[in-house]
Amino acid sequence: MSKKLTIGLFGFGVVGQGLYDIIRTKKLNIEIRKIAIKDPNKQRTLPAELFTTDRDEILEDPEINTVVELINDTEAAFEIASRALSTGKNVVSASKKMVALHLQELINLQREHGTSLLYEGAVCGSIPIIRNLEEYYDNELLHSISGIFNGSSNYILSKGFIENLDYDTALKQAQDLGFAETDPTMDVGGYDAKFKLVIAAAHAYGIVVKPEEVLNIGIQNLSAYDLQYAREKKLKIKLVPVAKELDDKHVALFVLPKFVNDTEFLYNVEYEYNGVTVQAAFADQQFFFGKGAGGHPTGSAVLSDIAALRYGYGYEYKKAHEKAQDLNFTNDVELNIYLRYEDEYLVQDLGFIHIHERFYSGDFKFVKGKINLKNLIIHQQRISDSKAFVAFADQLTGVSLATA
Amino acid sequence: MSKKLTIGLFGFGVVGQGLYDIIRTKKLNIEIRKIAIKDPNKQRTLPAELFTTDRDEILEDPEINTVVELINDTEAAFEIASRALSTGKNVVSASKKMVALHLQELINLQREHGTSLLYEGAVCGSIPIIRNLEEYYDNELLHSISGIFNGSSNYILSKGFIENLDYDTALKQAQDLGFAETDPTMDVGGYDAKFKLVIAAAHAYGIVVKPEEVLNIGIQNLSAYDLQYAREKKLKIKLVPVAKELDDKHVALFVLPKFVNDTEFLYNVEYEYNGVTVQAAFADQQFFFGKGAGGHPTGSAVLSDIAALRYGYGYEYKKAHEKAQDLNFTNDVELNIYLRYEDEYLVQDLGFIHIHERFYSGDFKFVKGKINLKNLIIHQQRISDSKAFVAFADQLTGVSLATA
Repeated sequence: MSKKLTIGLFGFGVVGQGLYDIIRTKKLNIEIRKIAIKDPNKQRTLPAELFTTDRDEILEDPEINTVVELINDTEAAFEIASRALSTGKNVVSASKKMVALHLQELINLQREHGTSLLYEGAVCGSIPIIRNLEEYYDNELLHSISGIFNGSSNYILSKGFIENLDYDTALKQAQDLGFAETDPTMDVGGYDAKFKLVIAAAHAYGIVVKPEEVLNIGIQNLSAYDLQYAREKKLKIKLVPVAKELDDKHVALFVLPKFVNDTEFLYNVEYEYNGVTVQAAFADQQFFFGKGAGGHPTGSAVLSDIAALRYGYGYEYKKAHEKAQDLNFTNDVELNIYLRYEDEYLVQDLGFIHIHERFYSGDFKFVKGKINLKNLIIHQQRISDSKAFVAFADQLTGVSLATA
Repeated sequence: MSKKLTIGLFGFGVVGQGLYDIIRTKKLNIEIRKIAIKDPNKQRTLPAELFTTDRDEILEDPEINTVVELINDTEAAFEIASRALSTGKNVVSASKKMVALHLQELINLQREHGTSLLYEGAVCGSIPIIRNLEEYYDNELLHSISGIFNGSSNYILSKGFIENLDYDTALKQAQDLGFAETDPTMDVGGYDAKFKLVIAAAHAYGIVVKPEEVLNIGIQNLSAYDLQYAREKKLKIKLVPVAKELDDKHVALFVLPKFVNDTEFLYNVEYEYNGVTVQAAFADQQFFFGKGAGGHPTGSAVLSDIAALRYGYGYEYKKAHEKAQDLNFTNDVELNIYLRYEDEYLVQDLGFIHIHERFYSGDFKFVKGKINLKNLIIHQQRISDSKAFVAFADQLTGVSLATA
């Protein structure tokens, strides 16, 4: 019932090599015909004729029906994916940034040319969240998706909570282990989580949102005071992307640190693991846990996408195509936050709708109160610069449309 | 890319009706042509010409390419599935007992006739565990699968732990709510969990095991003493099916109550929810949580299978077909158990390899020690009759092949 796949592979790093090994040992009716690499001089364990530095050798080979794209360069990845999709080739990609930035174009290309782009490996490593959103959940009935989508920042938070390391030491350790980049902004600043959130939201709600419209506040300003506060309340701090349907017309998306308690599954998601919580009307609460990053978990997701292409599988993007339902993205949302700050004027300018708690003791000052998400967006840079720390301090049910 | 499905539906209970509603409101290119029911006199909200009491009206209709089987009668379900698979129709079933009892025949039928049988709805409701075992895990690299597979028994255990109800009262409440049958043996005795375990093991390890060869000890003999013991140790008791690869030749399967601690995800799986833990070499630990029973969760899994048939999807049963790897099922396994008992001779006859702990205080007597699984099987009836309670008291790593 399945068709033979002839693959052109872009990139031969950890994921690509693992994938090659698995495909060779399994009888999957899959052949890797050609591998495009950047550096022709690097020592390889495979025959030289398998490699090329010319992408056209893959993109213009009519016998290659499937392109697997595992490179780091976002714009090159988009060019490869869009050329392949336009010329009848199906594509598997693990580039979350590329997919999130170009999602509408990629959806259009698939539709125009009847080709399929799959990217399970781009979102939460080995957790099959995209496939589940596509196949299990009726869009109208999905209340929220949230979770821990970024392993590097979660590793740093676990080091802080479990091993009592401060932020800088934990970051250094994560970098030494290869869990975080030299410039860790993508991970600890919540950008990586945001790209994944934007992709997930397209499948959950049919809304294609530009990443730059979505707030992401990361964990860079986390201090010993915040850890101490959380510990005293028996809470943990996690970096949590949220997509929530507010009513039948509005969906909110944001990435913020969040206090989680021990009855929430995310509480036990530690180190480089990821967890995704889906709240749906029919299937009710579902939770998925697994390794979020690394060659093998990503490789297993990429392989699963390849396997699905043998059956001609494609995402349907039903809501994105039909716009049957008039769901729109909004930032006009009220939620309760914890703000630890130094600059009193910041509190004033953020325009809290209501302040529930206010505390100061020496250098440790915080407020807890209800705020409009838009005000956080406006003052995002100032929050960052003034070393203030913001966390979502509520259950998801506490997020609501701004009252007119 | 997807093909049109024309469906004949068997059974129009909660799952069937929910499914019908979802299919009608979604644009899935799926038509339900005919519904076979038992009782023609029951009031229906749909036009009478949609229903039939004659199964041949579906099985002999050449335009129906897909049979969805949602009935309670195991042997009738098998007859329907096998006739459909033999005549070119694909089948979706939610009957765990039917699939577990006839698995080898059903695999053979699919192979002979090039048809596809999917049964995600039969195992752990809305949790896509079969699809994940099929697509994500390389068989050689799967260390274990375990979890909470039965919502009714878990509901009773949660009532005991959280609400302090004794077993009989909790069972009565579960029955009043429709979570447990009048004869609850299938659920609380671990049979239902065992059927699901046998199905999962076929996809995980390629072994097709007869359910009667697998030990299932349930929670019927749970007493206030056992609850007290668990509470003092900050543990919970869950009914846990286990499939574990012992070495590259042996796989063990069993269903036993198990003490779980608060670092395990299963600890927080309460009431009618299910959870599945998969330990794999590549993807590492993965955990899936969701509602295990009920019309909607099962309906969502059935719908997902139907959606996959539009792409010609079928399980591959790679290991079961190829027998490339010589994995065999065995009960010659050693593990640590907790045994609360009244009859001293039972302890003696069970032939513990080693007793680690022994306790008595009035009527409350227990031993903890290492035992061969075979001895539990031999004395299963006696354990049940003498009101003794057995629980697995170890991490899965503590299960090992019997030492020669």
